[in-house]
Amino acid sequence: MKDPHIVKSYDRDLEGIQALIMKMGGLVEIAILEAATSLEARDEELAERVRAGDKAIDALEEKVNEEAAQLLALRQPSAGDLRTVLSVMKISANLERCGDYAKNMAKRTGVLVQMAPMEGAAGAIRRMAKAVELMLKDALDAYIQRDAELAEDVRQRDLEVDQMYNALFREFLTFMMEDPRNITACMHLHFIAKNIERMGDHVTSIAEQVIYLATGHMPEDERPKADRTSVEALRS
Amino acid sequence: MKDPHIVKSYDRDLEGIQALIMKMGGLVEIAILEAATSLEARDEELAERVRAGDKAIDALEEKVNEEAAQLLALRQPSAGDLRTVLSVMKISANLERCGDYAKNMAKRTGVLVQMAPMEGAAGAIRRMAKAVELMLKDALDAYIQRDAELAEDVRQRDLEVDQMYNALFREFLTFMMEDPRNITACMHLHFIAKNIERMGDHVTSIAEQVIYLATGHMPEDERPKADRTSVEALRS
Repeated sequence: MKDPHIVKSYDRDLEGIQALIMKMGGLVEIAILEAATSLEARDEELAERVRAGDKAIDALEEKVNEEAAQLLALRQPSAGDLRTVLSVMKISANLERCGDYAKNMAKRTGVLVQMAPMEGAAGAIRRMAKAVELMLKDALDAYIQRDAELAEDVRQRDLEVDQMYNALFREFLTFMMEDPRNITACMHLHFIAKNIERMGDHVTSIAEQVIYLATGHMPEDERPKADRTSVEALRS
Repeated sequence: MKDPHIVKSYDRDLEGIQALIMKMGGLVEIAILEAATSLEARDEELAERVRAGDKAIDALEEKVNEEAAQLLALRQPSAGDLRTVLSVMKISANLERCGDYAKNMAKRTGVLVQMAPMEGAAGAIRRMAKAVELMLKDALDAYIQRDAELAEDVRQRDLEVDQMYNALFREFLTFMMEDPRNITACMHLHFIAKNIERMGDHVTSIAEQVIYLATGHMPEDERPKADRTSVEALRS
């Protein structure tokens, strides 16, 4: 039998780390939404706040890594607990990447406000960002509840985000072909859409970690993937 | 005093995992070069082999993670050893991402061979890929030797890769503006260049892990960053 005092302090440490993850997740959710809002509202100040806010997310990731390493060294958890600690580190890495993408989106807002807006593009990007933010919210809920079903739902919804991205990719191509003066703005918008699509992939990774924690194995089917732009020849 | 038998078997296990990392690194180096070659030679068969080869890289990452988790659970390493094991997991994650990018490059080769080649683009991409492959080779050597100086050199060279990417970004914009029929091919080429630039970032992360292992702290200066395309307004 393990010493119950040790077990308790392990649980307390782990809860502390999980609280950091939730805090990080909350900041990333806000960053995603505000990055998209700053683009649509052409609000450079808000974009600047998103860029500055990424530091707090990075600092939290560092703290999660430190505390998880300390927990591993001091408490030497058993196989199941070890899996939880490792998953926490992976999830925080995924969140940190999402924060980076939001920061990158916000950087491009600063450029795009200097150009004529593309009709409908900012709205479509906001909807895509909202879909990913909801996926993230549910992935974090699924993590706390160890809810594999909700995590699987998140995973499936990434397909829709990929489809939104594909539609935008085509739309930007059309804008560029119609008028070469649109090319620069469309390249930036396209980068932003791709950033959101990648965030969706990272949120999907979080959902897969939850499935692993809840069921003991990774999802068996190939991960759904609907970014087809790399394999389709779009003729100009 | 630790039991010397336990210490020895820990070392043996760790060496086994490091051998897996080297094997993985070798496969990724080949994938980067072959992805670029398949594009330049318009060789769809080679591109297909690169795509198929990514499975082996993914399988190695899984094996590294499993063995590292087992090592943590069985040997309960001390702080310094723990750091090594965690770094191994981070490095294998970086390598796996590089493999994904190479696969993605190879996918686009299949599309690009159906289009007229852009003058000079495939050669420039090959040079960029070669630079990243050499960075990776040195990062892995630095890892094995725990050579912080070589790792710092790798880190600085990422700046050159970023500059190559910036130059290509501008070139592709020009091609697109000259003739809208170039837009689709240039979008794919641009994706490929961006993938290589991202590989450079992952190799830089590996170099930073080496610096951390060798010196006990992460590099203090801000990471060099020369992808300026997100903050520059390129007027069309």
